[in-house]
Amino acid sequence: MKLEPTSSPGGVRGFRFCGVHGGIKKKGRRDFALIVADRPCAAAAVFTQNRCAAAPVLVSREHAADGRLQAIMVNSGNANCATGEQGLKLAHWSCDELASRLGIAPNLVLPCSTGVIGVQLERRVMARAIALGVDSLSKKGFGAAARAIMTSDAFPKWAERRVRIGDVEIHVAAMAKGAGMIEPHMATMLSFVLTDAKMTPEAARSMLVSGVATSLNRISVDGDTSTNDTCVLMASGEVAGFVVEGPQSDGYAVLAAAVAEVLEETARMIVRDGEGATKMVDVVVTGAASDDEADRVARRVANSPLVRCAITGADPNWGRLVMALGNTDANFDLMALAVRVGDIPLVEGGVVISDDAVAAARRVMRGDAWELGITLGSGPGTATVITSDLTEEYVRFNSAYTS
Amino acid sequence: MKLEPTSSPGGVRGFRFCGVHGGIKKKGRRDFALIVADRPCAAAAVFTQNRCAAAPVLVSREHAADGRLQAIMVNSGNANCATGEQGLKLAHWSCDELASRLGIAPNLVLPCSTGVIGVQLERRVMARAIALGVDSLSKKGFGAAARAIMTSDAFPKWAERRVRIGDVEIHVAAMAKGAGMIEPHMATMLSFVLTDAKMTPEAARSMLVSGVATSLNRISVDGDTSTNDTCVLMASGEVAGFVVEGPQSDGYAVLAAAVAEVLEETARMIVRDGEGATKMVDVVVTGAASDDEADRVARRVANSPLVRCAITGADPNWGRLVMALGNTDANFDLMALAVRVGDIPLVEGGVVISDDAVAAARRVMRGDAWELGITLGSGPGTATVITSDLTEEYVRFNSAYTS
Repeated sequence: MKLEPTSSPGGVRGFRFCGVHGGIKKKGRRDFALIVADRPCAAAAVFTQNRCAAAPVLVSREHAADGRLQAIMVNSGNANCATGEQGLKLAHWSCDELASRLGIAPNLVLPCSTGVIGVQLERRVMARAIALGVDSLSKKGFGAAARAIMTSDAFPKWAERRVRIGDVEIHVAAMAKGAGMIEPHMATMLSFVLTDAKMTPEAARSMLVSGVATSLNRISVDGDTSTNDTCVLMASGEVAGFVVEGPQSDGYAVLAAAVAEVLEETARMIVRDGEGATKMVDVVVTGAASDDEADRVARRVANSPLVRCAITGADPNWGRLVMALGNTDANFDLMALAVRVGDIPLVEGGVVISDDAVAAARRVMRGDAWELGITLGSGPGTATVITSDLTEEYVRFNSAYTS
Repeated sequence: MKLEPTSSPGGVRGFRFCGVHGGIKKKGRRDFALIVADRPCAAAAVFTQNRCAAAPVLVSREHAADGRLQAIMVNSGNANCATGEQGLKLAHWSCDELASRLGIAPNLVLPCSTGVIGVQLERRVMARAIALGVDSLSKKGFGAAARAIMTSDAFPKWAERRVRIGDVEIHVAAMAKGAGMIEPHMATMLSFVLTDAKMTPEAARSMLVSGVATSLNRISVDGDTSTNDTCVLMASGEVAGFVVEGPQSDGYAVLAAAVAEVLEETARMIVRDGEGATKMVDVVVTGAASDDEADRVARRVANSPLVRCAITGADPNWGRLVMALGNTDANFDLMALAVRVGDIPLVEGGVVISDDAVAAARRVMRGDAWELGITLGSGPGTATVITSDLTEEYVRFNSAYTS
């Protein structure tokens, strides 16, 4: 199920990019990316909630705190996580090194790492990658950067929107990576949203947080939250004319919608690229006591190995759904439960409707993208979580993957 | 990894058994079992915490409430779960039918069902099974009953102990079934412990609850808690001489230890028989702030798809461990973390010890049963959860399994 985006954004005004082979991965594969703005940008970032956050996440949290960033530095092939004091020093040092080459302050650099956990990243290799990366910066390097941040991804992920606010055309583009260890909480693997709009850090933060809530925080490949998840929004401000200052200001709604759309489009690409995945399923829970309860129910269903195996086999095994629903703290009456697969009602009043309904549901489930609707009948709460199937290929890949 | 127990307990004094083909499963396979005591027994039972508990669990909760039972009735091949009012009526009716044939009160019957969820169990078939079962009761039918309760199990599971208290020899035997949808909470799939000791319902309850805490509540195959989990202890009282009345009374400790041992032995058989499993791993967490925290950490590790794939591949991928640890709410210092694989120290002070340690750990991981020790260094809390690896065979089996 490879849905590679068809054309790479050429670039976004006010940014330069690179994606090079710095020597972290083997065989000359790209493993180092830079996104560098011409000037300090209004910026916002959210990070993994994993308590073993990687060294670059610790540094990035500090550097993003004041809402100003000028450069994102990413290495793939090594997560620089669980690397102790040495790993933390390396993350600080690499910001200093890049900042010095760019002639900017170190706290304008947001460092990101992704790859194997628990292995030291060598300073010598990073020094070479930084030097090469800075030399390779180009306004047209968006696609190269999107490729350089990949790890087990089968394809690069990006999306863009052009929106018009008054007379001004604004460009919003996102790139992302991720295929496994995916259940982001308040962040994703790596996801970078860039725009040439002019806005305040407060507006950037507000747009990012609401966009992430409806995209990256709604997906799960395996229920395992990575140690390195980072999602950043940077606004170069190259577009003159007005400044987006907050939710009430002109253009905020249009721009926030574009940000949310590129986040959702790239988040769905992450699910479609889920390790071994062949299907993408929207688990849509309605009728829960609250949105939070709906969210817990949707996640339990989306992460159940048995439900995900039933999706693999296109088996309308609603008994496994019942099992998963019963394993949450949701208060609902099984006799009021309704389930649909795509447009096909499968369960009403807690029992299967008919053999014909099962057969029709099975046909829908053979498709590579469909919706699983679950109505609990106990309140107004709703939530959607997007998941993939659990396949033998996922197990094969992750059993063979060497640390 | 098939560790079939070598010899079946011939029986336990005061009980008769059967395991027959009643017509629920296809191809003449055994699908109906009875365990019938000569007289009402002191008994205790614990059940699934899944909120969508099956009809027989609802009935069994009522029947076990007074601490007296005389018969356990089990059908395999159909869970009688999510079957609405019709399923509940069937469960009540089948107790009435068996009780009438045995000449006992219906509330002395504990009904259990296991198999596919969401399909009605036919009264006609159950009537035939009950008639045939009662005709087949025998003091030697323990092994036949243990086989008749199997579903996806590759082998029957039983264990026994003979203990001496004063001059009296007491016999304790357990049978169990289960291979998938396994993360019991306060119960297991199906597990029946029988003894000829004489005890009060209070003593039975106390022994059962403490025995389950160190056995069935410590295992996980896939983190999915079944809707039908039931664990029962029945004491026929055939052994004269003394009555075990509670934790302070003579013989309680010896008997409780025997009960705990047969529960643990059969619980481990469930993990070894985990669908597609090739390895059994004890995840032993120490140094947590509390036992509860240690339990949450051990479960997160034991249920992580990525950790379980690393076990499959015998890969000392301790980065995935760090990821899983970080996804709990445990407060610990990554720099104080220690990990061992069997007797091999792999991580000290939050970093991998050496390449030699990794190689030695890999050798241990190739074995089919070993211990994964995790020390958090933040307190006295400990917990053990026993898990299996996640294999392609698990996915193949559960994708092909038809509802």
